[in-house]
Amino acid sequence: MTIKKRIVSGMRPTGALHLGNYHGALKNWIDMQDSFDCFFFIADWHALTSDYEDTSHIKEYIRKMMIDWLGAGLSPDKSTLFIQSHIKYHAELFLLLSMITPVPWLERNPTYKEQIAELKNKDLSTFGFLGYPILQAADIIIYKAEGVPVGVDQSAHIEITREIARRFNYFYGHVFPEPETILTESAKILGTDRRKMSKSYDNAIFLSDTPDAIRKKVATMITDPQRKKRSDAGDPDVCNVFSFHKIYSTKDMVDEINQDCRKAAIGCVECKQKMAESLISFLKPIREKTQYYQQNPDTVDDIIAKGNEKASTEASKTMESVREALKI
Amino acid sequence: MTIKKRIVSGMRPTGALHLGNYHGALKNWIDMQDSFDCFFFIADWHALTSDYEDTSHIKEYIRKMMIDWLGAGLSPDKSTLFIQSHIKYHAELFLLLSMITPVPWLERNPTYKEQIAELKNKDLSTFGFLGYPILQAADIIIYKAEGVPVGVDQSAHIEITREIARRFNYFYGHVFPEPETILTESAKILGTDRRKMSKSYDNAIFLSDTPDAIRKKVATMITDPQRKKRSDAGDPDVCNVFSFHKIYSTKDMVDEINQDCRKAAIGCVECKQKMAESLISFLKPIREKTQYYQQNPDTVDDIIAKGNEKASTEASKTMESVREALKI
Repeated sequence: MTIKKRIVSGMRPTGALHLGNYHGALKNWIDMQDSFDCFFFIADWHALTSDYEDTSHIKEYIRKMMIDWLGAGLSPDKSTLFIQSHIKYHAELFLLLSMITPVPWLERNPTYKEQIAELKNKDLSTFGFLGYPILQAADIIIYKAEGVPVGVDQSAHIEITREIARRFNYFYGHVFPEPETILTESAKILGTDRRKMSKSYDNAIFLSDTPDAIRKKVATMITDPQRKKRSDAGDPDVCNVFSFHKIYSTKDMVDEINQDCRKAAIGCVECKQKMAESLISFLKPIREKTQYYQQNPDTVDDIIAKGNEKASTEASKTMESVREALKI
Repeated sequence: MTIKKRIVSGMRPTGALHLGNYHGALKNWIDMQDSFDCFFFIADWHALTSDYEDTSHIKEYIRKMMIDWLGAGLSPDKSTLFIQSHIKYHAELFLLLSMITPVPWLERNPTYKEQIAELKNKDLSTFGFLGYPILQAADIIIYKAEGVPVGVDQSAHIEITREIARRFNYFYGHVFPEPETILTESAKILGTDRRKMSKSYDNAIFLSDTPDAIRKKVATMITDPQRKKRSDAGDPDVCNVFSFHKIYSTKDMVDEINQDCRKAAIGCVECKQKMAESLISFLKPIREKTQYYQQNPDTVDDIIAKGNEKASTEASKTMESVREALKI
């Protein structure tokens, strides 16, 4: 028996998951379950760093997200699935790591500057928002994670986590491994309007959408903007619907459409209908599993309770070493 | 039966207490025990905001401080005496309050700027040091304190606590009373060298000093700097030893010395000897009680355990309301 490397990752509770969330992170998590000792959590405290003014949906969003996780294939038998705010040790470690983390490390965090500039309608000048990389570091190292799966754009965060772990070990003796960045690839999925797929842009297709909802959304998708009439030849290379085909349709269908579109042998309406059916087939097992969990709330409660308990036990052990190292 | 107002206050664990600590805060606490529902805590997490590099003495300092508290007259039958880091809820509330506290509130805190300038030998650019008013707010409002006893120089801190409580109530509904500042008076005690009495200046007389140690320290005290020879008349108004007489000696002795010094009828050596004996008498009951607790460590353990338990129960109740208000 080889000991699996432990990895930790989390998602903010944004409610129902869309295809962008699935291909961006969740699919990688599902694939990693067999080769790693996985801790996956719903980061509800993190949600407060930017959405502190209206918290009315958090519980509902947590629930929806957990059900989508389970429906998509995260397995409580393979992974530890839990909710951040139920493991109070994260807050204790956040507090302790705060004491040794220089403010300039946080200010130079590129995501910090970006988000302040991007989310102009929110007041993000809070202490919690400035400190979220410390909370993230606590989330990760409290499980003594050896790796964190991230996209290439997030590797700066893991660098801060590693620096904080190193600084703790330097002052108080070795407690934490420095987690490695495990770069993951993800299919780029755009929304129906070709912008980034996002719930707030109203351009998302959700894992739990009904077949009819999917057909309607796909029908509105923007294709090759140069193809104005049915008789115009199209260019699949710039068509968002074709990108979806490449993910969800069979290789034969993809090849056929690639040829037919270029000679106007297939129109966008028909092409979209075919894609919608491919997507519906792809999502069918996920939808069925999701429905099962929706109809069995006790099973979900039980999975969450067991995940929280396992996470709590692990975090508690680490915090004992932390307090001992700190002599507090 | 009238319900007593609840007050909360804490001290950083600096080890054995000196006369400056006693007259600056502890005496007021002791006097308030009968008229208020008092929660007094040893702020060991706060100690980390400035002394994170060397934590080797914290446990010993906590113990010494608790024993001095008990020796001086804090009573576990009247007050809840506890240790901050044992009540993990403080960390949870600190995290949650972080989310709603604007960084500029912290940056404009006058003590923050002062300490950064004063403690040049320490690196205080940490996130924890910037955020300590939030931790302080959490410490206070987690017990729904209605008042905080402070010296006039600390009232700015309580103002931040009130603002944070108000902001929480504004966003999530009324949970916290806004604690009032209870201004306390304190006798100003200088060290043996006439600077502020401080352990780090090596000019302090400790509550637990032996009579011999007190006699030796008092013998080195600086008196009226203008009085060079025994035959010179002195000025009690500028003499630090006379300030001590006014606190520890009988009115008759104070009057006598006041007259005799001015006509050189008493020398500084004799005057100091008299003051040392007055101080020794004053400290005798404290020293005896302190020795009792030193010799009965189980009693101290028991007092701490009971205090922690009571504080934990109260903090837990508040955190339930907090989570409910936050819908998290």
